[in-house]
Amino acid sequence: MVITHQFHISTEGFCDIHNITTHVEMGVQESSLSNGVATVFTPSATSAITTVEYEDGMLADFELFLEQLAPQAGHYKHNDRWHDGNGFSHVRAAFLGPSISIPFTDKRLMLGTWQQIAFMDFDNRPRTRPIIVQMIGE
Amino acid sequence: MVITHQFHISTEGFCDIHNITTHVEMGVQESSLSNGVATVFTPSATSAITTVEYEDGMLADFELFLEQLAPQAGHYKHNDRWHDGNGFSHVRAAFLGPSISIPFTDKRLMLGTWQQIAFMDFDNRPRTRPIIVQMIGE
Amino acid sequence: MVITHQFHISTEGFCDIHNITTHVEMGVQESSLSNGVATVFTPSATSAITTVEYEDGMLADFELFLEQLAPQAGHYKHNDRWHDGNGFSHVRAAFLGPSISIPFTDKRLMLGTWQQIAFMDFDNRPRTRPIIVQMIGE
Repeated sequence: MVITHQFHISTEGFCDIHNITTHVEMGVQESSLSNGVATVFTPSATSAITTVEYEDGMLADFELFLEQLAPQAGHYKHNDRWHDGNGFSHVRAAFLGPSISIPFTDKRLMLGTWQQIAFMDFDNRPRTRPIIVQMIGE
Repeated sequence: MVITHQFHISTEGFCDIHNITTHVEMGVQESSLSNGVATVFTPSATSAITTVEYEDGMLADFELFLEQLAPQAGHYKHNDRWHDGNGFSHVRAAFLGPSISIPFTDKRLMLGTWQQIAFMDFDNRPRTRPIIVQMIGE
Repeated sequence: MVITHQFHISTEGFCDIHNITTHVEMGVQESSLSNGVATVFTPSATSAITTVEYEDGMLADFELFLEQLAPQAGHYKHNDRWHDGNGFSHVRAAFLGPSISIPFTDKRLMLGTWQQIAFMDFDNRPRTRPIIVQMIGE
């Protein structure tokens, strides 16, 4: 059986990292499924999904890491062509990826104790973002 | 219900990036499924799957990004041992990962407006590559 | 139908890379499923799952690659705050990601000839790690 759960997150962009664990858990709770896999997907080319220990130190470390890898003020051919200034956002989103898949049993996501689901918006302006949780199970 | 769709892509290697969105969409269209998840998987240790805005500027930016991270002409112990010269390909593939999972509803992939599915071949020679789309749904 | 297979791996930490292909294959063999997708998931914020050609040269290359990207001895705000010294582990795990999804048909994982499933533990001490294989199929 397939259940689609969708929600929206308002972001500031520029590497704005949100803890969306509760939103995904709610999708599983409200579904009729007990066991299965929740695919968490961002329908966007300038944002990404992963898991983190969601605490200020780690989030600052990860933001600095991304800034060193794909700097906001770097030179991007995407910007030369489209003049939208979010070349860094596209590079970051492509290497982190748009989806993760999380098993659940007895209606509980099988996350680790210190592991939360993170949505990262890299665009260079505030956005309201849809996020999709596609659950398959029984 | 599970449906396996497979297709092949001819590549030049050396970070050859292909837009495979239409191939994946066709798999969903031709299946008997309306709602579910399409797992797009490359059965290879020198290529990867992600999503991008597939336009020349972004593709050039991403190629340069990967060249700086894992340079083709760098020193790799894999090359010392096997003399096949594709150490950079292995590092890039492991870092980006072999699979993404994309939800679909009403027979349509839930991709964003500017988001396409990209297959990236990092090997150092032309290849004909199989790509697998495993669809689970109803 | 959903089948949960779980196993444990003893690791040394500090970028300890294990080939878990046989463990995942065994899950598929022991299940009642012939075709489907195996989601391999690490319930942890300091480890990751990907695929590699599992040979000493490549593993050494990847370890050096990660050390250059997120050095063990770097300065991390996570360490300033929690004094557990594993800031580098968190950064590495977040960008590699906790899950991959692998199709299987006729009870065989559709991996490439030189492609193995790798579990990477980045924590800074030995751990016994649970790994989850959630299989959905028929």
